[in-house]
Amino acid sequence: MRLALNQITTNRWSVREAAEGCARAGIGAIGLWRDKVAAAGGAAAAARAVRDAGLTVSSLCRGGFFTAPDGIADTRRAIAEAAALGTDLLVLVCGGLPDGSRDLPAARAMVHDGIAAVLDDAAAAGVRLGIEPLHPMFCADRSVITTLGEANRLAERFPADRVGVVVDAYHVWWDPCVEQEIARARILAFHIDDWVLPLPEGALLGRGLPGEGRADLPRLYRAVAAAGYTGPVEVEVLSERVWAMPPDEVLERLVAEADALLGVSRSG
Amino acid sequence: MRLALNQITTNRWSVREAAEGCARAGIGAIGLWRDKVAAAGGAAAAARAVRDAGLTVSSLCRGGFFTAPDGIADTRRAIAEAAALGTDLLVLVCGGLPDGSRDLPAARAMVHDGIAAVLDDAAAAGVRLGIEPLHPMFCADRSVITTLGEANRLAERFPADRVGVVVDAYHVWWDPCVEQEIARARILAFHIDDWVLPLPEGALLGRGLPGEGRADLPRLYRAVAAAGYTGPVEVEVLSERVWAMPPDEVLERLVAEADALLGVSRSG
Repeated sequence: MRLALNQITTNRWSVREAAEGCARAGIGAIGLWRDKVAAAGGAAAAARAVRDAGLTVSSLCRGGFFTAPDGIADTRRAIAEAAALGTDLLVLVCGGLPDGSRDLPAARAMVHDGIAAVLDDAAAAGVRLGIEPLHPMFCADRSVITTLGEANRLAERFPADRVGVVVDAYHVWWDPCVEQEIARARILAFHIDDWVLPLPEGALLGRGLPGEGRADLPRLYRAVAAAGYTGPVEVEVLSERVWAMPPDEVLERLVAEADALLGVSRSG
Repeated sequence: MRLALNQITTNRWSVREAAEGCARAGIGAIGLWRDKVAAAGGAAAAARAVRDAGLTVSSLCRGGFFTAPDGIADTRRAIAEAAALGTDLLVLVCGGLPDGSRDLPAARAMVHDGIAAVLDDAAAAGVRLGIEPLHPMFCADRSVITTLGEANRLAERFPADRVGVVVDAYHVWWDPCVEQEIARARILAFHIDDWVLPLPEGALLGRGLPGEGRADLPRLYRAVAAAGYTGPVEVEVLSERVWAMPPDEVLERLVAEADALLGVSRSG
């Protein structure tokens, strides 16, 4: 496994700035976000910026939100963008409860049906779909898929070469079943970040850099490795605090911490 | 099932005020908290205040925190207090990760061993221990027991007449396995409250009154009823916003909402 940067960790940087920052730090792959790709002038321009820096695109965030009216159409657009960026992985954040609804089973059925609806598009584009279970505290507003077990069961309803899961430490570290679920998972990506307290208002932007918090990242890393995963270890930190730090310093810390904690090195 | 009040819902009221408020609202049982019992002059005085109002004590919150140095001794004191209050149920909040630790399996073993250590005291006092799984967002700091499935597996390692679980809607509503876990659970209490957004800083005091949020309380109620539970439906709302409301008004709303949502009536 090699270190990668998910660009939201350096949220103030453009695609080009992030790719060049990774090159300086010796990181060889980057996960992109669609708003940043759009701000870069679209997928072709963003792909060129990444290529110019000598990097590859590890993933695109995100499709999904199948419980919202535009979810399927928007995910089709995301699939096309992923293909244009030259990555074969689209991360799916599946969507919370529909507006005004409390019906979790119905929302979960919408997620299944949404994935089914875009499956042919993904296959035609050569893009795999990575279901990312989110922490249960996001169940109402972001993802009704809340555990790795649930994500595994959902992925297993689709072809193994097309649909898998994204294991993100922040979302799954607490789960008493996480190791057995990692062992059986079709792992398409492994994200690291950390659980720090207190949660900020809204809970979204309160993650820690790897090593700052309470998640046992080495234990998760060992489980993911034992499951046969050999792809990137992508650092994804949504945090107002981290975003206020100089991005080059963030990258230096990531590289050092990934090596110290996990023995994961840069590709460069 | 009959409606009960967990007194933290009317946090500004003393034990006597809360018991009298319940009597005015026609609620026949109340769950107490130890800090309020202490402020009332101890268990005997608190028990008298509740009895004077014509109520019974449905539960005592809380023992547990077995991952902290004083957890076992403190839970023994809580067992004695529960018995002195005339309730046979002590709610256990099991404790988060020990200071400085990231070792979840070890913390979970400490919880098991803590329950084992107090089991004889509980039996001698005629008090049952109710393991309350908390929402996973409290895993680091409050309870490493995060799902009803995990609480069930833990409870099943102890005698059925001594150890069971507390099903609290706020903590379990998101769980894709909640219905099957309720079906097999030794349910000692059923708490209702609601998931409202956004979470406040710290996440602890942001619950909603039943009906205000996104949890499907009727679905949980039906599952608990189908599992054979016939005890109190205890309303437990930790919320700065609700605590700022006139407590009598809170009780009126609870009574109306429990009837409208669940068909649960007062005992009075």
